[in-house]
Amino acid sequence: MNDVIKLLNSHRSIRKFTDQEIPHGLLLELIKAGQAAATSSHVQAYTVIHVKDSDNREAIAELAGGQGYVASSAVFLVFCADMKRPTEASARTGANVERGMTEQLLVATVDTALMAQNVAVAAESEGLGICYIGGIRNNPEAVSELLRLPAHVYPVFGMCLGYPAHQPEVKPRLPVEAILKEDYYTDDSDHVAAFDDTMQAYYQSRSSGNKNSDWSHNLAPLFDSKLRPHMRDFLVKRGFTMK
Amino acid sequence: MNDVIKLLNSHRSIRKFTDQEIPHGLLLELIKAGQAAATSSHVQAYTVIHVKDSDNREAIAELAGGQGYVASSAVFLVFCADMKRPTEASARTGANVERGMTEQLLVATVDTALMAQNVAVAAESEGLGICYIGGIRNNPEAVSELLRLPAHVYPVFGMCLGYPAHQPEVKPRLPVEAILKEDYYTDDSDHVAAFDDTMQAYYQSRSSGNKNSDWSHNLAPLFDSKLRPHMRDFLVKRGFTMK
Repeated sequence: MNDVIKLLNSHRSIRKFTDQEIPHGLLLELIKAGQAAATSSHVQAYTVIHVKDSDNREAIAELAGGQGYVASSAVFLVFCADMKRPTEASARTGANVERGMTEQLLVATVDTALMAQNVAVAAESEGLGICYIGGIRNNPEAVSELLRLPAHVYPVFGMCLGYPAHQPEVKPRLPVEAILKEDYYTDDSDHVAAFDDTMQAYYQSRSSGNKNSDWSHNLAPLFDSKLRPHMRDFLVKRGFTMK
Repeated sequence: MNDVIKLLNSHRSIRKFTDQEIPHGLLLELIKAGQAAATSSHVQAYTVIHVKDSDNREAIAELAGGQGYVASSAVFLVFCADMKRPTEASARTGANVERGMTEQLLVATVDTALMAQNVAVAAESEGLGICYIGGIRNNPEAVSELLRLPAHVYPVFGMCLGYPAHQPEVKPRLPVEAILKEDYYTDDSDHVAAFDDTMQAYYQSRSSGNKNSDWSHNLAPLFDSKLRPHMRDFLVKRGFTMK
């Protein structure tokens, strides 16, 4: 296994950071590495907001569900899917731009995620720790207002970056046999049952936050309610009308 | 700049491959490296179909818009957003699962993209070349039928992998100043104008497929029509009803 693959396999979310700052030159290097990721038809449908204002960081920490590290990490970024820039560039050439297609939501969301994952890998290659903050979608409208996001731009997730002040275990993943299938989709409930045993053992032995649960029971509260039911109306209001 | 960041910056899509095969053990290593990526609430909402059947590969090459390398690359994978596995696992614990939320579409799409980008980076670290195939969304229903995808699973993109038989230039990206903003979203049309000049020069000087165009003009046909207008109905039919 080469060093890059070892690095990828060593990922875990970091939520406690030292006071050490991230030099601006390094941040630029990470973002550029992000931009090097593949992009659908070269559309580069993303914008990253580097949130420096401490009031806004504290506000977003609360809006994301009380995640204090949003305010205390060395750097906090918000990754936005951005269909404004490419559609306006097209419109300036005289194109009769059709906005709000469902496909445009997918293209922009995927572009943003590919880009962010490269930033994450680049950051970890420099000894930084990161944590994705999907919690900004708890209150996406308030976050969008704080960042003055225009129409056709929506915040997909945030990311905390900083030098790690803890070393949590790497969390197990589903058996590769469950998620990789040959030629056709097949049932994998036996692999899920085995993974529930793995996670039961993990939750009981990990160094922090022991609990008696497994993968299936841990997910249940997520799907036993309407998950972020405001997202549809929010996206429509942003111009992602899902036509 | 460290070697990992150099690797990320060297990405370009590879569409011509040698006959060299990818050992199955290496493929498993790449997929596991993919699984190590961050996942929203540990949901791991993805399934990868390794398409080996040559008839299906040729069919998908056609369905994706006549992309022959889908059939001829050493390995062709289809990355699927999978809400079936986690919601069924939840249901088995007795949870009253609510499906079809827009947020679930986002979670599964982002999870799939983060995972795939790790596979791409891992592959390139082993000297392989890759090419994302968004074109499978030209005919997502036919692709889903070929792969026997059940409800609550949809094919996000494909990926060709193999040993490169050409060395295309790295394509320029928007200036980092355009896509990275401090605290608030701001206008970046001046950076787009500069980037149009960059791309004009690139398209005229690159070693293959010279043309007289720039970024804005190149995107215009993409937005001057309804981009993949079938995607909404397709997703609804798959159970991603975007409630």
